[in-house]
Amino acid sequence: MARLTEIGWEDFHALPLEAKRAYLERTEGDGMPYHTLFAQQFDRATLERLCALANRIRFINKSKEGALYLKSVLAHKRAMLYFSQPSSRTFLSHLAACQIMGLTTGSVRDAATSSEFKGESHEDSIRTFSSYFDMIIMRSPEQGLAEKMAWELSNSSRPIPILNAGSGKDQHPTQALLDIYTLVRSFEEKGGLDGRTVVFCGDLMRGRTVRSLSYLLTNFRDVRQVFVAPQELQVPADVVMILAKKGIDFEVTDDLRGAVKTADAVYMTRIQDEWDSSKGASAKIDTSRFKFGAEELKLLPKDGIIMHPLPRRDEIATCCDHDPRAMYWRQMRNGMWIRAALIAGTFGFEKTVMECGY
Amino acid sequence: MARLTEIGWEDFHALPLEAKRAYLERTEGDGMPYHTLFAQQFDRATLERLCALANRIRFINKSKEGALYLKSVLAHKRAMLYFSQPSSRTFLSHLAACQIMGLTTGSVRDAATSSEFKGESHEDSIRTFSSYFDMIIMRSPEQGLAEKMAWELSNSSRPIPILNAGSGKDQHPTQALLDIYTLVRSFEEKGGLDGRTVVFCGDLMRGRTVRSLSYLLTNFRDVRQVFVAPQELQVPADVVMILAKKGIDFEVTDDLRGAVKTADAVYMTRIQDEWDSSKGASAKIDTSRFKFGAEELKLLPKDGIIMHPLPRRDEIATCCDHDPRAMYWRQMRNGMWIRAALIAGTFGFEKTVMECGY
Amino acid sequence: MARLTEIGWEDFHALPLEAKRAYLERTEGDGMPYHTLFAQQFDRATLERLCALANRIRFINKSKEGALYLKSVLAHKRAMLYFSQPSSRTFLSHLAACQIMGLTTGSVRDAATSSEFKGESHEDSIRTFSSYFDMIIMRSPEQGLAEKMAWELSNSSRPIPILNAGSGKDQHPTQALLDIYTLVRSFEEKGGLDGRTVVFCGDLMRGRTVRSLSYLLTNFRDVRQVFVAPQELQVPADVVMILAKKGIDFEVTDDLRGAVKTADAVYMTRIQDEWDSSKGASAKIDTSRFKFGAEELKLLPKDGIIMHPLPRRDEIATCCDHDPRAMYWRQMRNGMWIRAALIAGTFGFEKTVMECGY
Repeated sequence: MARLTEIGWEDFHALPLEAKRAYLERTEGDGMPYHTLFAQQFDRATLERLCALANRIRFINKSKEGALYLKSVLAHKRAMLYFSQPSSRTFLSHLAACQIMGLTTGSVRDAATSSEFKGESHEDSIRTFSSYFDMIIMRSPEQGLAEKMAWELSNSSRPIPILNAGSGKDQHPTQALLDIYTLVRSFEEKGGLDGRTVVFCGDLMRGRTVRSLSYLLTNFRDVRQVFVAPQELQVPADVVMILAKKGIDFEVTDDLRGAVKTADAVYMTRIQDEWDSSKGASAKIDTSRFKFGAEELKLLPKDGIIMHPLPRRDEIATCCDHDPRAMYWRQMRNGMWIRAALIAGTFGFEKTVMECGY
Repeated sequence: MARLTEIGWEDFHALPLEAKRAYLERTEGDGMPYHTLFAQQFDRATLERLCALANRIRFINKSKEGALYLKSVLAHKRAMLYFSQPSSRTFLSHLAACQIMGLTTGSVRDAATSSEFKGESHEDSIRTFSSYFDMIIMRSPEQGLAEKMAWELSNSSRPIPILNAGSGKDQHPTQALLDIYTLVRSFEEKGGLDGRTVVFCGDLMRGRTVRSLSYLLTNFRDVRQVFVAPQELQVPADVVMILAKKGIDFEVTDDLRGAVKTADAVYMTRIQDEWDSSKGASAKIDTSRFKFGAEELKLLPKDGIIMHPLPRRDEIATCCDHDPRAMYWRQMRNGMWIRAALIAGTFGFEKTVMECGY
Repeated sequence: MARLTEIGWEDFHALPLEAKRAYLERTEGDGMPYHTLFAQQFDRATLERLCALANRIRFINKSKEGALYLKSVLAHKRAMLYFSQPSSRTFLSHLAACQIMGLTTGSVRDAATSSEFKGESHEDSIRTFSSYFDMIIMRSPEQGLAEKMAWELSNSSRPIPILNAGSGKDQHPTQALLDIYTLVRSFEEKGGLDGRTVVFCGDLMRGRTVRSLSYLLTNFRDVRQVFVAPQELQVPADVVMILAKKGIDFEVTDDLRGAVKTADAVYMTRIQDEWDSSKGASAKIDTSRFKFGAEELKLLPKDGIIMHPLPRRDEIATCCDHDPRAMYWRQMRNGMWIRAALIAGTFGFEKTVMECGY
């Protein structure tokens, strides 16, 4: 933490993502974050520690005694959920994570209430929340805001951690964490994630989840990435460049069925038409071949899994829902556990929980 | 629980209400509900057990030690209050019931937030909530939705109980429970509810509370029911038919004062003009003779009670509020206790609470 | 408490503020409030007890064990936050105070939800909340409403305390408490508040915080009050009259810099243009000389402090924020502690907390 106080905002902001990582750790070299701002701040070791902690928490939580123990771990802490861009799903998942670890919470989650803060600067609003709470979990339509607020708070007389629950089109690090956790967990008794093939399908241009997950997968060995999309929605060049530079094996295609046959995981995404530059632009794109249904299910290897960040429209047919390979509901629940792990880790309770008697 | 997985949705949905009861029990033949969907699922024995449990909880809660014990009973559980049809009164009562038993809660309660879920199917939304919580308390303008969701969840890989906090014009089972609890409690030291006369007055056509309570009263012996309303708002034929079939003594009249003289309980209701088929239709009906005021108070027997589901407009004059027979405020508070009892029972803690040392 | 039941509403309402005080105490002559309705109900002894209790609570809360102890003190109580006039800042501060002392909470805080209650009388709404909760923390645009509700509840079969979190243009007693607490705390190791000079600057006509704080300062010895404002926004005659009657040393001026030189505390306020009688009226007033910036900072004595009730616009330049004399962020956090103290005191736990072993 000390270090964000030793660098000016402009200098910090200008650093490449990977160089920012060191400034966000709880303690130097520990890996565990104090502020969680972007997916790229997690290296493999930290990802695996968080997955292990999430596994531990979900196991402890199975018994009533264990659940009550977990609720005692952070019972002296209070978290503020500041969602100026409403999202009930992400809100509830973070809320549940807080409740599991015992934090009490306050929230601003609707446009009407949050507009009250429009008269004042973001800095002042965040300082207000930091007066009353011990952590701020924030979601905002404004790109980069979480990063700025983290720097501001670290340089205030009341530094508290920021957890970015989504900022603009840009970053949604806990979504990336839950995706990695789902993959790690799905393959942990089948030889692990190294060497697997992950197929991304849908709107790969505008989905921030794809960008983050693609990056985090480069932390693992020999994970092949396949991008399946209509040409207009294909994965952007900067993502491809990172993979090429790192020597990652990847493929860009429009053949979903071909890709499914070789997939260990198929990551389906929704067409994000809310970002259309002109209304209805997405509707003109033929997306019919980029949906997962009964046919694709037949082609998927027996150990393969189907993922989706949800909500879905018709990218995955409901007939797939009861297939044991459909992982998207469990993926959502995984989000709650990995967020509980992240919050415990942020406050320095990783070791306490890992080594407790439950 | 096992049993909802052994019947298809169409078959289940087509069953008569009483036949559905067995599918909703925690364990076969136990009576205590797992899903609470409609008033008719409660038989007399279960009603009396819930009333006894509510009495026990309110007694235990009188001391600080008792209150803290109660908060420990379900401290390992989390409830989701999903109110797509806002109702702060019902919301707060369920919230308080959860808090008494120690559950932490999440909520969606305003139209703006809940509209986010409109893009996805009800099934997917409910699966989302079931990922993060251990119980869903739901209120919806859509008739039958709670029943569908209960079936869906019971057939998912994460079955959790549904508590219907009001669905459409149709069912509001916990309102019926609190009405019964208020009657049982009011007469428990005066010989009980059997043989009493209950007078319903007001908008009997559209009030779902009247329909539910009328039905539940048939579980008791010789409870005479009197329906007082303007002709346009009288009790519907299907309610009358059930009473007739069961050989219940009942009367349909427009003479409130005459009815009050013989009443053990007078259940006043509000004109529900929000359901008017054309705007202002209710305003044309002369309801002046269907209000409870100083005159009616004089006519009411000294052990008689006045009930109202609240909110009221002018159906009961405020001059009645301080009369010891005015039971409507206590009735509201009873709602909190019976809901706490229902939640405790749903999770299988009836015996634990009944037999605890407090 | 007994006493509000011995006086009719009209008689109580007509009493001068100071005469009402005795009716609001927990127990006769104790000073500690049962209902908290207006700033003027606090005498110096009670203010000092609340400040001491707030200090104690913030000290205890520093350790995890202490924080958990505090959470146990009122864990058997539930508070309702009824904010029909939304204010997230005040809402969150009261919420955090409740959480620190262990109360669970329910809330109505948005216009849409609270409009549901418009169909019924305020009395009925408040009775509803009193059915489910043990305390009502209310904010309302309606002047005097909290007082009426306190009288109503004290005369009902379920009396519970009312805490006024702001009613109309009129009263906001907990803001006055946190202001006093900030002053007391800032000077407690420097000889105390007696004999100090407090400078008020900005919109002194419409700020209820100025009115309340000015009054409470008369409880202390020889506190000189200086009012700095453009003529159109100067302190109203009734405030001046109270000071004159009590023989308080005060000054009315438009010279901020001159006042700052002699100030122990400068209390800056925002132009409250939301109360403008015609739109834009405030914008025509030249307020440029009533802002605190780098120049004023130079003139402020080294032990002087800068206060602001927040939110601010440009009344205080952000370049002042890191000066150790800038007290406004700590002032906000003080609000949380003094409210926690007030709630503990309201429920009779002052002694318990003051004498606990932490």
